[in-house]
Amino acid sequence: MASASRATPETLPAWQTLKHHAETLKRIHLKNLFGNEPGRFSRFTHRGAGLTLDLSKQRWDDDTLEHLLALAFEAKVPEAIEALMSGKRVNTSENRPALHTALRLPPSAELHVEGEEVVGAVHESLAQMQVLVERLHAGQWRGATGKPIQHVVNLGVGGSDLGPLMVTHALADYRPRNIHPVEVHFASTMDGSQLADYLARFNPEVTLFVLSSKSFTTIDTLSNAETAREWLLSRLAGHASAPVSKALIERQHFIGVSACPEKMSEWGIAPEHQLRFWEWVGGRYSMWGTIGLPIALVVGMTHFRALLQGAHAMDRHFAEAPLEQNLPTLLALAGIWNVNFLDIRAHSILPYDGRLEYFAAYLEQLEMESNGKSVTRQGQAVNYSTCPVLWGQLGPNAQHAFYQLLHQGTQPVVCDFIAPLTRYDEVEERDTRRHLKAQHRLTLANCFAQSRVLMLGDDAIDDDGPRPEHKRYRGNQPSTTLLLDKLTPETLGALVALYEHKVYVQAVIWDINPFDQWGVELGKQIATQTQRLLEGEGELDRVDASTRGLIEAFQAAEREAEAPSRDV
Amino acid sequence: MASASRATPETLPAWQTLKHHAETLKRIHLKNLFGNEPGRFSRFTHRGAGLTLDLSKQRWDDDTLEHLLALAFEAKVPEAIEALMSGKRVNTSENRPALHTALRLPPSAELHVEGEEVVGAVHESLAQMQVLVERLHAGQWRGATGKPIQHVVNLGVGGSDLGPLMVTHALADYRPRNIHPVEVHFASTMDGSQLADYLARFNPEVTLFVLSSKSFTTIDTLSNAETAREWLLSRLAGHASAPVSKALIERQHFIGVSACPEKMSEWGIAPEHQLRFWEWVGGRYSMWGTIGLPIALVVGMTHFRALLQGAHAMDRHFAEAPLEQNLPTLLALAGIWNVNFLDIRAHSILPYDGRLEYFAAYLEQLEMESNGKSVTRQGQAVNYSTCPVLWGQLGPNAQHAFYQLLHQGTQPVVCDFIAPLTRYDEVEERDTRRHLKAQHRLTLANCFAQSRVLMLGDDAIDDDGPRPEHKRYRGNQPSTTLLLDKLTPETLGALVALYEHKVYVQAVIWDINPFDQWGVELGKQIATQTQRLLEGEGELDRVDASTRGLIEAFQAAEREAEAPSRDV
Repeated sequence: MASASRATPETLPAWQTLKHHAETLKRIHLKNLFGNEPGRFSRFTHRGAGLTLDLSKQRWDDDTLEHLLALAFEAKVPEAIEALMSGKRVNTSENRPALHTALRLPPSAELHVEGEEVVGAVHESLAQMQVLVERLHAGQWRGATGKPIQHVVNLGVGGSDLGPLMVTHALADYRPRNIHPVEVHFASTMDGSQLADYLARFNPEVTLFVLSSKSFTTIDTLSNAETAREWLLSRLAGHASAPVSKALIERQHFIGVSACPEKMSEWGIAPEHQLRFWEWVGGRYSMWGTIGLPIALVVGMTHFRALLQGAHAMDRHFAEAPLEQNLPTLLALAGIWNVNFLDIRAHSILPYDGRLEYFAAYLEQLEMESNGKSVTRQGQAVNYSTCPVLWGQLGPNAQHAFYQLLHQGTQPVVCDFIAPLTRYDEVEERDTRRHLKAQHRLTLANCFAQSRVLMLGDDAIDDDGPRPEHKRYRGNQPSTTLLLDKLTPETLGALVALYEHKVYVQAVIWDINPFDQWGVELGKQIATQTQRLLEGEGELDRVDASTRGLIEAFQAAEREAEAPSRDV
Repeated sequence: MASASRATPETLPAWQTLKHHAETLKRIHLKNLFGNEPGRFSRFTHRGAGLTLDLSKQRWDDDTLEHLLALAFEAKVPEAIEALMSGKRVNTSENRPALHTALRLPPSAELHVEGEEVVGAVHESLAQMQVLVERLHAGQWRGATGKPIQHVVNLGVGGSDLGPLMVTHALADYRPRNIHPVEVHFASTMDGSQLADYLARFNPEVTLFVLSSKSFTTIDTLSNAETAREWLLSRLAGHASAPVSKALIERQHFIGVSACPEKMSEWGIAPEHQLRFWEWVGGRYSMWGTIGLPIALVVGMTHFRALLQGAHAMDRHFAEAPLEQNLPTLLALAGIWNVNFLDIRAHSILPYDGRLEYFAAYLEQLEMESNGKSVTRQGQAVNYSTCPVLWGQLGPNAQHAFYQLLHQGTQPVVCDFIAPLTRYDEVEERDTRRHLKAQHRLTLANCFAQSRVLMLGDDAIDDDGPRPEHKRYRGNQPSTTLLLDKLTPETLGALVALYEHKVYVQAVIWDINPFDQWGVELGKQIATQTQRLLEGEGELDRVDASTRGLIEAFQAAEREAEAPSRDV
């Protein structure tokens, strides 16, 4: 990614080889690639950082992988990995580095980026975060009326929401004991739905809001923040016997997390309650730093640091393992093969562990916002597919929802099955442990069974007697199985880093920039214009007939709603 | 759907016409279809049952719609609607009717199906449900130790989970006041994650479980139910001064909802706490009956009946409106056009209202489980695409997550934008109302802006000056906008019924059976076999190398986890 003058992927020799090769492979059913070969599992399975990655159920063979590795070399993946890690300006359209890996370097490390050492600053910001977390966990953070804070509501959206939301659910078992109880909540939607519910239920005296926005201009978050501030002011100002000032309320009930301190100060966040991060961290890569505050509040700083260590272990693996054993690279190559050579345009993420409920939503952002692009870094339109549509749900639940389409639909889909190998060993009570471990085995059995049926189709059963067509399964659906030794802060960190780097390797091969998101800018601009039109300002006949019709429908409905005369 | 000898769709004259017609339309950008035509909105927008359906941003014109309507007639859609509603055996592979519409017929209606009148039975089951709901709302349902029930946990998955989960979130504003407070919770995943969390937090004395399973053999639900029963027995049996028997615990802490009363009795559900439904209601169409118990518990029976009335209003519209004004039919035809003639394989569901958080997950099941099929009703493999991949998220949040791919990715996606026109008018406090209504307008503005940008691309802005390629938007992405006058039980009922019937019309045209789900059977069978292998029974060398490798990895991890000697 350092060199700007690379050939586009479809002109690389290995791409051409792969195109020819795919013609052959397309005609071979996955079950025949397996045959009776006992070695296929170990040949296509690799381990690293507490994860086991089984790629044997991809529709590929040794030759495919060889050509794909050649493609990675021709696309200069090793050089790109080094450029990423060392802080080169890999985010070309915004001309800056993408240094999320620096957020998880150990304190002993050093990294000089354009003359500045960054590791020290990173650990300083973690230390600052730790101070706030420990005050809250000690029950020493008091609201404006003197009562210890009990509810923390994270106001953030996108990268300032999905990462903390996903991890706090995944690691809820790791809550520290013997601390002052603080409940963490999330409000993200701009329409106020979630927030309104909290405001109806919580006591403002013990409620603190975290305003999380890289730019501190995100309208979704600022709208919610304004509503929250008004709620606090109206409910607390006249509340106590002692006068409660606006400044006191703002100081004791708000923390800000942003790359823009001036904007935080302007809004009213006290300087000592501002947590910083940097322009060189993208929103969807930011949960490793101060945006991770809600995570640290739920699991404590020790476990938060363990999460960073797990991600760092994957970073080391990514930087050091040869490509043919490199987990992120292999996962990326499987994706390239599916998208560009087998024309599989949909990808399903299926965790077999209820704690990973938000993992698919997290990956939807990570992958589609990073690689949903169609222009090369040199500004040329691509003539090949990039990011597929990614979606998912907890695997066992999806079995009762959309697996029908995976098994018998008309469209090929590739699946990632994700599960921990062991679970519930730490449950104290003997009978409960036995019962829950049985539920875990049942879940794993389903996970392994589904990928087997997707691969083999009808051949999964011995007794493949005559059956009507609607009971037949075509099989030949590729999948990846990803096992965590156990779901811990460390393995979760490694899992997320694995996907981050997978996305990067694919971007390198596709020759796109995964770190910008220009595709979301125009919508914001037009929304502002549309809002004015909704409010009766501006010329309605300058927009298209549909937009005009929709706005008129709104205005008519508003008039009708207000007709029975309200004191507006 | 009544006639078994229909031509497959691609042999119908209109299908051929549409194929040729698509060659022309494919070359026309959506913005040019709009041009400056002021009438396009009203020509492609229709109203019914409190909904406004704007199809003007589909990539079609008058001719397209005419051909599509011809296709609907050739595929005998009107006859199929009549067959559905009158209780013909439209579920061909299981040889029974699909009578979810009967669940919402008013008490005054009559429907004779194969000699039996069903409306009376339907309303009897609703009345039985009402008795249970009112006992709980009166605080008169007491647990085994005599305390009124406070927590109801729904144990169900798929159709026994997603509908109630979706609706209880959507209609939380409609909670009745002045009742004994009962909180409703959902545990669906077979791994026990959600349930374990509840068991750690709730008092068993005041916790009741609803076991919801059509067949009463769903292993996910029965596993959770077993864990719940053990928890109650171990915590309550030795608890009170008076002896608490197993029978008393089972009677006071469990309700069963199933089409199979024998199995409920066998499990231990008291006959008076068994709610019934029928074989002729599919799981994913079942929230309108007793499976809707959690809905009724949250919103009360009056609002539950209003939900049914809204759905019934849509049923009437579906049965009576001519095809060219028929909302479900028009929505279905837009889908057929996108999938089969424009080759758009992905469909995103984007509600602009936080209360509809689970609506996309609900539709994922409804559409993909119904129409993710590839065999005609006569048992022939289809040679055309059926159900696309469907996924979604709250629109405003998805703007910060995957809209990048919608605007600038390489793959076409069709979007459904869904929003209520008015909101928050009933908020009492004046400033809060003003503020929340502004948040609603902001949300609507974003909704309308996004579909505009998807349609027009760069042309959405006046100042379309020179910009680098990565800041350009191709536009030409079709979308539907669906407006609810207001989100009420009635309009939500109509909205869900709209999609149910859309799915049915598409199934009729594709000549597939939307009411079976044979594609999920084999997985269950193989999971049972795999579970035995995980537990060390059976011959491991009879399965493929990957399954064997994964099972061995599990067994090794188990040995290691148990190595530091536990009292197992």
